[in-house]
Amino acid sequence: MYSFLIRHLSRYISLEPQEITLLTESFKLKHLKKKDFLLHQGEVSRFETFVNKGCLRAFHITNKGEEHIVQFAVEDWWIGDMYSFLTQTPAMYTIEALEDCELLQIDKNGLEELYLKLPKMERFFRIIIQNAFVASQKRIISSMSQTADERYLAFIEKYPAIEQRIPQYQVAAYLGITPEFLSRIRKKFASK
Amino acid sequence: MYSFLIRHLSRYISLEPQEITLLTESFKLKHLKKKDFLLHQGEVSRFETFVNKGCLRAFHITNKGEEHIVQFAVEDWWIGDMYSFLTQTPAMYTIEALEDCELLQIDKNGLEELYLKLPKMERFFRIIIQNAFVASQKRIISSMSQTADERYLAFIEKYPAIEQRIPQYQVAAYLGITPEFLSRIRKKFASK
Repeated sequence: MYSFLIRHLSRYISLEPQEITLLTESFKLKHLKKKDFLLHQGEVSRFETFVNKGCLRAFHITNKGEEHIVQFAVEDWWIGDMYSFLTQTPAMYTIEALEDCELLQIDKNGLEELYLKLPKMERFFRIIIQNAFVASQKRIISSMSQTADERYLAFIEKYPAIEQRIPQYQVAAYLGITPEFLSRIRKKFASK
Repeated sequence: MYSFLIRHLSRYISLEPQEITLLTESFKLKHLKKKDFLLHQGEVSRFETFVNKGCLRAFHITNKGEEHIVQFAVEDWWIGDMYSFLTQTPAMYTIEALEDCELLQIDKNGLEELYLKLPKMERFFRIIIQNAFVASQKRIISSMSQTADERYLAFIEKYPAIEQRIPQYQVAAYLGITPEFLSRIRKKFASK
């Protein structure tokens, strides 16, 4: 149950057996069924969540009721509303399971305790958050500069092998284009 | 010269005198004149930069030649192109001094050495990057959802006291509105 998380952490920090025990005691297992919600916009996000199995999407609903997809997550990814989690204020995102999911979660107190007991987790989360920040900056730049073709190629680079698991209208929503236009782009690149 | 940086770091981590010495040896002073460039889009960013004095802007130039301002920085802020710095690939941003600036810089090898010699810097940068990530997420949401009035209020909350130091057409560019429209918004809130 914890083997994916430990393998994931070990890519960034080295872990002794007693440290692995401490980690497994800090994370709790959670199951979601397809279409269940992990978080609703406006609620306070109580957990940081590692995806052991499954697929989720995070989206923001505007004042006009439009849905904007900000992130997908599959195995080996983290998902959550970090602002809400850190400041314990209402979440900007809703997070929904797109498949049955097996998740590992840690709450704010648990994470603060873990930083104290296992300071190398500072390094781990520094690197993880750094990568998330860089991806977020790239997304801002991409929305300013890139054509739909370029955004599609960036999507399949960022989320390899996820395309077959997500309904096409949701990929289109993430890219900010219509499903018909996405279908034309996919045909173009499939024939190359 | 290092007192602002040490005070800034001490807000997040406690520092012993010998650790302060190590830090001051790791950062190098750099001066920029108004309108000088710290980084050009397409170059590799070699430094992370702390602003001791002055004001800068980071902007991205699209394929069509449009400038998009992604960040301002004043005293006590960090500025740089983190993606370029971390991956040593071409920068997505150009960074320009809007006033004469006094900056403290650390290069990639210097920072990696500092993490090894002073692991509490992992905690410091974990928190700093976390805040930057959260600000970046808020900016994405804000560009989707907020009216120009709301974006203006978010700007003066994020950059208090910066408004008088930056040309109004650049504030307008950051907010994605015309200078004339910004002028109308400012008058409305000034009279409240």
